Amino acid sequence: MLLLVKNKEDWSKVHSLSIGLLGLGTVGSGVVKVIENHQDKLIHQVGCPVKIKKVLVQDIEKEREVQVDSTMLTVDPAEVLLDPEIDIIVEVMGGVEETKKHLIQALQQKKHVVTANKDLMALYGPELLAAAANYQCDLFYEASVAGGIPILRSLVEGLASDRIAKMMGIVNGTTNFILTKMSKEGRSYDDVLTEAQRLGFAEANPAADVEGLDAARKMAILSTLGFSMEIKLDDVKVKGITEITGEDIRYGKQFGYTMKLIGYAHRDQDAVEVSVLPTLISNAHPLASVNDEYNAIYVYGEAVGETMFYGPGAGSLPTATAVVSDLVGVMKNMRLGVNGKSSVNPQYQKHLKSDDEIYSKYFIRFCIHDGVGVMTKVTSIFATYDVSLEKVLQHPLAEEKAEIILVTHRASRENFRTVMTELREVPAVVKIESVYRVEEGDTV
Amino acid sequence: MLLLVKNKEDWSKVHSLSIGLLGLGTVGSGVVKVIENHQDKLIHQVGCPVKIKKVLVQDIEKEREVQVDSTMLTVDPAEVLLDPEIDIIVEVMGGVEETKKHLIQALQQKKHVVTANKDLMALYGPELLAAAANYQCDLFYEASVAGGIPILRSLVEGLASDRIAKMMGIVNGTTNFILTKMSKEGRSYDDVLTEAQRLGFAEANPAADVEGLDAARKMAILSTLGFSMEIKLDDVKVKGITEITGEDIRYGKQFGYTMKLIGYAHRDQDAVEVSVLPTLISNAHPLASVNDEYNAIYVYGEAVGETMFYGPGAGSLPTATAVVSDLVGVMKNMRLGVNGKSSVNPQYQKHLKSDDEIYSKYFIRFCIHDGVGVMTKVTSIFATYDVSLEKVLQHPLAEEKAEIILVTHRASRENFRTVMTELREVPAVVKIESVYRVEEGDTV
Repeated sequence: MLLLVKNKEDWSKVHSLSIGLLGLGTVGSGVVKVIENHQDKLIHQVGCPVKIKKVLVQDIEKEREVQVDSTMLTVDPAEVLLDPEIDIIVEVMGGVEETKKHLIQALQQKKHVVTANKDLMALYGPELLAAAANYQCDLFYEASVAGGIPILRSLVEGLASDRIAKMMGIVNGTTNFILTKMSKEGRSYDDVLTEAQRLGFAEANPAADVEGLDAARKMAILSTLGFSMEIKLDDVKVKGITEITGEDIRYGKQFGYTMKLIGYAHRDQDAVEVSVLPTLISNAHPLASVNDEYNAIYVYGEAVGETMFYGPGAGSLPTATAVVSDLVGVMKNMRLGVNGKSSVNPQYQKHLKSDDEIYSKYFIRFCIHDGVGVMTKVTSIFATYDVSLEKVLQHPLAEEKAEIILVTHRASRENFRTVMTELREVPAVVKIESVYRVEEGDTV
Repeated sequence: MLLLVKNKEDWSKVHSLSIGLLGLGTVGSGVVKVIENHQDKLIHQVGCPVKIKKVLVQDIEKEREVQVDSTMLTVDPAEVLLDPEIDIIVEVMGGVEETKKHLIQALQQKKHVVTANKDLMALYGPELLAAAANYQCDLFYEASVAGGIPILRSLVEGLASDRIAKMMGIVNGTTNFILTKMSKEGRSYDDVLTEAQRLGFAEANPAADVEGLDAARKMAILSTLGFSMEIKLDDVKVKGITEITGEDIRYGKQFGYTMKLIGYAHRDQDAVEVSVLPTLISNAHPLASVNDEYNAIYVYGEAVGETMFYGPGAGSLPTATAVVSDLVGVMKNMRLGVNGKSSVNPQYQKHLKSDDEIYSKYFIRFCIHDGVGVMTKVTSIFATYDVSLEKVLQHPLAEEKAEIILVTHRASRENFRTVMTELREVPAVVKIESVYRVEEGDTV
């Protein structure tokens, strides 16, 4: 643009708004496309054209999905971050430490920031938001959680008057794709992972997805906003999907459950728990039918009750939609001269629940030497620690062994852990095959 | 409050914000409760206490769900609308013509307005929004569509950068409750309606719900926002659920469909269609599993793809949540001094599709005198007008009659109508029992 706009009085003189783009990969290409293809809608809403002026890339020569004038490309961050004509930085390059420096530099230059970077926001969100407020800049990050689903806005504005008691999310498309295929086609984890990699739903190194870290980052961001409490990545208890077997899924089905990687965030009074765990969720729950690479976030508010937000959690254009919608937000604020005023500091001090405050149902599958009194011994351990059993299934295996599958009633994590420790010490118990959280359709 | 706030400079002097409430029925009581119970969250977000100062009611003596100091109640609208200390009017009294006058008067007094009134917004939305802009006031109406689901915000802000191609909504809880019961329990319309009335899910006079008018109002509001085009209530083609029979639901099931009252809004280029029709929707579609009194709006955006927003469509506290979240929006704008600037005029001139531009699949159930050549005659009529058949089921009835159930491929409404007219003239056709729209899981 031809004029730096810092307050609304100047707006009538603005001829266009200029964007500096950091990164031109999958999401970056989508951002270029959405800005081009929906320019008329942007002009209608913002009042002037929106142009990408400079793009930071790693390799200028690389073939790309979108045509971008090569004079716009640069490998030098300063050419984007220090360009006085650029109003807003859109960060879709990924990475954490160096990217954070770029964004701080952008804010110091009084450039607003839109980012899709969940790694960065999960680790440094509060610090970056404080810097943005300090420089009276907007820092929006809707695209960092659940791609095309406007869930952050819905939590902060749509449910602004409610107190959120519980959020459960399928917030990682890769793992949901894998679990859906395993569940529907009876295939093994390794087999489906290979297909997912071939189709582009899983990366060559899938660790961050399949080990639950990606989902944990999103849950840290969601619970920080939803509970108005600074939840850090380390506060999120995480387990991935790599050990889930076809048997677990099949027995789950038999009991009326679907296996999902569920991000779970719950508040009792002012104490919260946040986790990402493979979970057997009741088929009656709306999350159970969220399949393939789709994401959904189920939100239970004290007043509103049950709501759910469903859509694509990743992908070039869906994520770009969230990025450009954030851009529209920044530009509307620029027109009104109210940037840097929309974020609200956390209302509460963080208080994490201890293990004796965390309640859940559990599914356990284990193998025993079948013999007189073994089942009595096993069930008595559960009874001793107040863990009552809701469902029991036993069937014989070869060599006088038997497999036992149990679903407990709600029990504290502390008691349940003690039960598992004692169970492992029973000589007749050969192996604990698997343990999962179980989630019913009940609301709180 | 002690001081009229019209710009941000005064904000530090504000001791509290005062609300005038029009109506103290189901939603009004919910608003009182949410403001009381979540006062700490409101203060945290808005920066000062939020108080209800005056409430317009019809009968001061009436027993109510909530305790409200009787000195706050009045039967005189002027006592609320003209009170200089009241900043924001919350309208939850219902009604159209007189209510509209109240809101215009409130805006003239420079009071912001939050309303839950879909009847009013469907009929006079553009006029009221223009008045609000004229007086630099906010007029928010999130609660008018789908109660607790923040769908209007999601359309306007969350999907601000996208072009919406299609919206389908289950936006009436009463009819969804009735159809769910009919479908799951095999009960008749009349039987379930009576139960719904007893449980409070249907009104004593259920006409506006069961005849589709309530849903049509919501679709007019949704499509006006989603397509950025002024869609009027009269533009919405409407049919209710009163003629749906158990047979229709059963045959639908047999073909893999669920019967729902679907609000349908579709855009091709710049031409749109909006309807509310009983629809057999594929079980694979996310809307098919939205049951009981729940609402959901499925939105297909060109870039974002498929999204869905699910939650309670009515009820005291859910609707109140939407109202009070709008209040928070108004109050944040007051603090920033930017009221009356968030609504955007429609971008497009309205252009409704003609019947030869509207395509759909259809389900038809009819009765014939069985005889040589009848089926050939029937199917040839469909073929003549390019309506091809996807599914055909014929079974014998008593007295040499037969029932035929057809599902067509996509056909223009014009051609389909001609087919139906000719079909009625075939002597062997005894009766057309039912005709429904059919919606597959395909995206556009």
